[in-house]
Amino acid sequence: MTPGVIEVIQCALHEDIGHDDVTTSLLIPEKSRSSARYIAKEQFVLSGFPFVKEVFNVLDSSTLLEPLYREGSMVEKGSVIAELSGKTRSILKGERLSLNILQRLSGIATLTHMYVEKIKGLETKLLDTRKTTPCLRFMEKYAVRVGGGYNHRFGLYDGILIKDNHIKASGSIQKAVKAAKKGHHLSKIEVEVGTLKDLRNAIESGADIVMLDNMSLNDMRMAVKIAKGSVILEASGNIKLENVREVAETGVDLISVGSLTHSAVAADISLKIVK
Amino acid sequence: MTPGVIEVIQCALHEDIGHDDVTTSLLIPEKSRSSARYIAKEQFVLSGFPFVKEVFNVLDSSTLLEPLYREGSMVEKGSVIAELSGKTRSILKGERLSLNILQRLSGIATLTHMYVEKIKGLETKLLDTRKTTPCLRFMEKYAVRVGGGYNHRFGLYDGILIKDNHIKASGSIQKAVKAAKKGHHLSKIEVEVGTLKDLRNAIESGADIVMLDNMSLNDMRMAVKIAKGSVILEASGNIKLENVREVAETGVDLISVGSLTHSAVAADISLKIVK
Amino acid sequence: MTPGVIEVIQCALHEDIGHDDVTTSLLIPEKSRSSARYIAKEQFVLSGFPFVKEVFNVLDSSTLLEPLYREGSMVEKGSVIAELSGKTRSILKGERLSLNILQRLSGIATLTHMYVEKIKGLETKLLDTRKTTPCLRFMEKYAVRVGGGYNHRFGLYDGILIKDNHIKASGSIQKAVKAAKKGHHLSKIEVEVGTLKDLRNAIESGADIVMLDNMSLNDMRMAVKIAKGSVILEASGNIKLENVREVAETGVDLISVGSLTHSAVAADISLKIVK
Amino acid sequence: MTPGVIEVIQCALHEDIGHDDVTTSLLIPEKSRSSARYIAKEQFVLSGFPFVKEVFNVLDSSTLLEPLYREGSMVEKGSVIAELSGKTRSILKGERLSLNILQRLSGIATLTHMYVEKIKGLETKLLDTRKTTPCLRFMEKYAVRVGGGYNHRFGLYDGILIKDNHIKASGSIQKAVKAAKKGHHLSKIEVEVGTLKDLRNAIESGADIVMLDNMSLNDMRMAVKIAKGSVILEASGNIKLENVREVAETGVDLISVGSLTHSAVAADISLKIVK
Amino acid sequence: MTPGVIEVIQCALHEDIGHDDVTTSLLIPEKSRSSARYIAKEQFVLSGFPFVKEVFNVLDSSTLLEPLYREGSMVEKGSVIAELSGKTRSILKGERLSLNILQRLSGIATLTHMYVEKIKGLETKLLDTRKTTPCLRFMEKYAVRVGGGYNHRFGLYDGILIKDNHIKASGSIQKAVKAAKKGHHLSKIEVEVGTLKDLRNAIESGADIVMLDNMSLNDMRMAVKIAKGSVILEASGNIKLENVREVAETGVDLISVGSLTHSAVAADISLKIVK
Amino acid sequence: MTPGVIEVIQCALHEDIGHDDVTTSLLIPEKSRSSARYIAKEQFVLSGFPFVKEVFNVLDSSTLLEPLYREGSMVEKGSVIAELSGKTRSILKGERLSLNILQRLSGIATLTHMYVEKIKGLETKLLDTRKTTPCLRFMEKYAVRVGGGYNHRFGLYDGILIKDNHIKASGSIQKAVKAAKKGHHLSKIEVEVGTLKDLRNAIESGADIVMLDNMSLNDMRMAVKIAKGSVILEASGNIKLENVREVAETGVDLISVGSLTHSAVAADISLKIVK
Repeated sequence: MTPGVIEVIQCALHEDIGHDDVTTSLLIPEKSRSSARYIAKEQFVLSGFPFVKEVFNVLDSSTLLEPLYREGSMVEKGSVIAELSGKTRSILKGERLSLNILQRLSGIATLTHMYVEKIKGLETKLLDTRKTTPCLRFMEKYAVRVGGGYNHRFGLYDGILIKDNHIKASGSIQKAVKAAKKGHHLSKIEVEVGTLKDLRNAIESGADIVMLDNMSLNDMRMAVKIAKGSVILEASGNIKLENVREVAETGVDLISVGSLTHSAVAADISLKIVK
Repeated sequence: MTPGVIEVIQCALHEDIGHDDVTTSLLIPEKSRSSARYIAKEQFVLSGFPFVKEVFNVLDSSTLLEPLYREGSMVEKGSVIAELSGKTRSILKGERLSLNILQRLSGIATLTHMYVEKIKGLETKLLDTRKTTPCLRFMEKYAVRVGGGYNHRFGLYDGILIKDNHIKASGSIQKAVKAAKKGHHLSKIEVEVGTLKDLRNAIESGADIVMLDNMSLNDMRMAVKIAKGSVILEASGNIKLENVREVAETGVDLISVGSLTHSAVAADISLKIVK
Repeated sequence: MTPGVIEVIQCALHEDIGHDDVTTSLLIPEKSRSSARYIAKEQFVLSGFPFVKEVFNVLDSSTLLEPLYREGSMVEKGSVIAELSGKTRSILKGERLSLNILQRLSGIATLTHMYVEKIKGLETKLLDTRKTTPCLRFMEKYAVRVGGGYNHRFGLYDGILIKDNHIKASGSIQKAVKAAKKGHHLSKIEVEVGTLKDLRNAIESGADIVMLDNMSLNDMRMAVKIAKGSVILEASGNIKLENVREVAETGVDLISVGSLTHSAVAADISLKIVK
Repeated sequence: MTPGVIEVIQCALHEDIGHDDVTTSLLIPEKSRSSARYIAKEQFVLSGFPFVKEVFNVLDSSTLLEPLYREGSMVEKGSVIAELSGKTRSILKGERLSLNILQRLSGIATLTHMYVEKIKGLETKLLDTRKTTPCLRFMEKYAVRVGGGYNHRFGLYDGILIKDNHIKASGSIQKAVKAAKKGHHLSKIEVEVGTLKDLRNAIESGADIVMLDNMSLNDMRMAVKIAKGSVILEASGNIKLENVREVAETGVDLISVGSLTHSAVAADISLKIVK
Repeated sequence: MTPGVIEVIQCALHEDIGHDDVTTSLLIPEKSRSSARYIAKEQFVLSGFPFVKEVFNVLDSSTLLEPLYREGSMVEKGSVIAELSGKTRSILKGERLSLNILQRLSGIATLTHMYVEKIKGLETKLLDTRKTTPCLRFMEKYAVRVGGGYNHRFGLYDGILIKDNHIKASGSIQKAVKAAKKGHHLSKIEVEVGTLKDLRNAIESGADIVMLDNMSLNDMRMAVKIAKGSVILEASGNIKLENVREVAETGVDLISVGSLTHSAVAADISLKIVK
Repeated sequence: MTPGVIEVIQCALHEDIGHDDVTTSLLIPEKSRSSARYIAKEQFVLSGFPFVKEVFNVLDSSTLLEPLYREGSMVEKGSVIAELSGKTRSILKGERLSLNILQRLSGIATLTHMYVEKIKGLETKLLDTRKTTPCLRFMEKYAVRVGGGYNHRFGLYDGILIKDNHIKASGSIQKAVKAAKKGHHLSKIEVEVGTLKDLRNAIESGADIVMLDNMSLNDMRMAVKIAKGSVILEASGNIKLENVREVAETGVDLISVGSLTHSAVAADISLKIVK
């Protein structure tokens, strides 16, 4: 597992259980054992079991979890998607957190999948953003990949993206790109632009990637002509399921969509104890 | 601030910034100072600034944040909702996390508000659930209150809720309630039931609260008649904006809605540097 | 194990061992193995082995611990209460912490048991308080249960107890109870009172539990008559082994005793290496 | 403050407050401010305010605490020992932890003082042991000093104490001392012995300090004669208020007493809000 | 300060001070205040005061530190490089850690400066590596920049470097580069090669940067001719002060040197209390 | 393992891997397994595998590490010093940290060994200092022992060393030693002196150890005569490989050398995947 995931899971288990699961300690004998099933209550793209495994590793490593579908599978309403067995107390203590993770990540994978389906057959790739849930970015970006999308940078630390304010502070796109290149030889330089004029500036300055922020379809088409492959073009801003194909058809290389992670609806999943 | 919030904020800042905000360090002089504005890009119920204050306290306590609306205000599209000033580098480093928090919490407050508006004039209260984002429960339950809702228990540790599996393990509702009362004198006992027969059992066993799980409107009306105020009744399961008023009109005391926290759509907010 | 216990054990091991057990590293070969026995040096009610197990799990999970009595057993002076075997270095490093835990928890269980014996045959239950050792509350409240007592709330977070200052700030008992009920539907409301008049106020206001603070035996008897079972009555303040039965005989439902946890005397236990 | 104290205080505040002080949040307005007094409910030797200061620093650094007596003062029943002012919520949230610390540390200081008074006029010094509360050793050893005692080693890391098991593993006292001296030039070497014969062995082997474990008064007197000042002599085991002076009068240099920290009775202190 | 630095400083202070600076607590009165000077005992390039500031912020924020030279200054033997004033106890507790940081970072900055001087006038840039001290990478890479060098990637997370083993696992350089480009659009792709043939493969595969591992000067000259600016060339392996200029004169763009961080000799600095 | 080492390893792994080893995740299949060898690229004294074991325990406990030489062995250039097998991804993720540890600790052990060889046949012992790398002191002092040296105190907490400033604050050496002895009976008292006069003072005051700071060889010879074995003498300051034997031949008991830890050059070691 990745550094950080265990800490998030520990924090979330502590958040839910606190000093004790009072009801369960009062009513379920310590030695009681059960089997349970995760059930899809609607159709969705499955994501999250690698993290649910860690939930039970942290909580009680004697619990057995067996997913019945691969990550990224489209599961049908009513499907048993995994089996769980172990101490009843551990199952009940981990139930809510495991569902909260599965529902959120499957929601993200499902929404990503819907976008990806829309642009099927085109070269354009779908990207996420940094508009993720605090402390869950690693998990959410994983779900985007599971749903068929690609990841933009993980943070401010692993990519250079020169925005409006950076340009203002530097004096011009040209100066900003030059300064960035001088200090850092190992990253591509991405510049955010709002106009075709600035796109031309960015290209001339030696940018590697240009983000077209909130441009009209027409401008995006022009941008593709201007760039002629000399830079990677990323479309961003106000892109929805309804218009994502039109945007992709302009010929941009990448489309980034914040709602993949900040506004996905939870998939409906339940855990049923069967014996 | 509450124990735990600071840790979540530290984790989230580290998640986003890592070893450095590379672009900003390359392009923004250390001494540069700026003013910026948080702007509502649509209408919503505002929530989140107490936590945003902590973000900047942790990141750089010399940053000044002045919210211009109270938590819970309905803000209009285009409103400047807060002003921020300080080191440009700190503003840029805290921008994304502060927006991610504001957008999520305002989204929850807004959705809660919509539910609360639907049941206006009735005695019924709207509750959240434990279907929250891992590690953000405290913040999200706060946003529910800001939106006019009430909080159900915060975790497995601060309330007794006897569910199906607890009843099965105990043998009967009666035995489960009796055992819970024997071990714990200080909490109300809530029992989840799926039928009116079990409701009667729960009342006779001395339950204080009964959760009516996925009952029909007719059954809920009957439940209210059966209970006659002897227990608190909570409706739960499949309650949406479309049917929440009908549910409330059955006379139940409480309605709990998971989607308040697991499926709220982020409010649209941006941060603009003005000088 | 409960969230938090491992952290306390890690902290305590670090506190005792620091960078190294210097004597042991100098004198005991790394491969040396030993067997040892925990021995009762006086009669007491045993408590603490579940936590001692965690001590050795954290320190060196190859160490074997086999308790020879159940938690809550009355053990006689001279009894071998558990056997321990493993690396000599690990036994010596964990010796002091394991004894410190066993001695404290057995001391608490023993004192609790003495109180419980005093009120044998009566309905009244013995409760602990929040007057516990910082960071060890979970362990100490466990020892109270092992000794036959019951737990009051674990913290400020899992129960409502309206005290003097809350009443003052609210204006009256009635207003305080009303406000608490309005904001929180899921907890019982406990009110602390010093007079029979306030007891009546509390009952009329709808309190669920009333704590009689430092009342005379006569007043407690009156309180029981006034309440007639309409609220749970808890006696608190200056209750000692000498007077606990008299207090219980007044008919109060609960008696809470701070000294169970803040002034229990450590049980006398030693660890002897036998080979 | 010492490394580690802040962590213990954070842990203890979290233990008591959890996600929230529910009663206080429901009933005390956020802006309410109060003054309060710590009051001695019996006579005792005061200890603990430096740590209580840290409690409020961590909880809400705008709270003001003014102790009215120095650490180590004998305070009389009824004395106001400190004044506290600040947000009412913060005072109520910190009340219990601050009292738990003060009561425990004052209890230890008081018991230590009683022992020290018993051996007044003699050269012998009173020492504590490692029989302290897990994670609170630093605070408890501080209270011993405040009460007039001295500290034995803080852990296994800052002193060499060769016990039975170390001797067995080394073959003889002589070999053990020799090996310890060879590996470590900077510490005194203390050896625990149970007989006068072993005392002689220890002295001949070059021990710096010898702990006389559970020896009779006669043997201790002989030990003093044998040692003639060539080693420091520490008496240990079954030393109580009743016999501590007799032990000291044998002429031993040090007397260590475990009950100072493991069995001190909490001092009775309360916090009263005055306006 | 960057996330992580504070934790390292806390760890290091705890490592040095433990439960207490025993000598200082015994001999220096709590109220004693002093002034002290950091003095260069030889000539070197100064680096480290931003972190020393944090040391005293964490330890005792009332301590005042005033560096008298800028980071990166060449200071002469005997120079007073900073003044420090505050509680004597705090100065003594922070002395060793502050010196350990200054000596190490100044050592790195000085060695880096020596390399940079060697290649003065050439276009080639000097880079560090990941051969840094565990947990101190951020500080050490800072010192490299202070000394006039540039930073290679900070970790495995912020750059793609395809080595031998990655190529083997992928089947060929071409396949490896293709797979990397497909999965990641935002980073430059660096490939490590040992032969000119592989260099050609890497260029044809679309690598952005090629690391020439342990090549002869002749091969490096050929590599520059082959690349003709189509990729960035980085020389690596066995580069010392003696041969760095020859390597740079081959025309490579970058030279990375592990010994900058793993084998720099500490600068000689002392702290003198002056009153 | 010692408390603290695991935390340092976790910190260092996180420092290097961050959210992911991007290259490896893109190019190495999750199920791929490999064998690898640690190879000595020059002659050195081996040290570090106990910590490298912990690196892989933390990272992926299914990885197998088999060192082929004992700690402290002199290994020849070209030797395979250990074999490693497991998941290729885990090997690649742990490679750099494991090498950074091995190279540093072997560097220290090798340098220590060189000093120890120089003073072979003499009674004098070689000591390290507190001039270690922040957070790595435990590991570095271990490497000193592996190289044949001895450890001075581990921190300010486990030894009393009275320096210049302590003497100044106390008024005289005599007063300082007296105060230290009064407060602390269990440690030897070491005093740092710069002149033979102060050496005499220290001896008369009852110091156990005297550190001769930066004395000439002549003065050290005189010091040995003055002390006549009544105190342990430690030479310190400006001791190098070139003069260490001369210093030892003066007859001092201990020689402490800061450069053992602050200026050792990393041993050259590589990790080669063999299949």
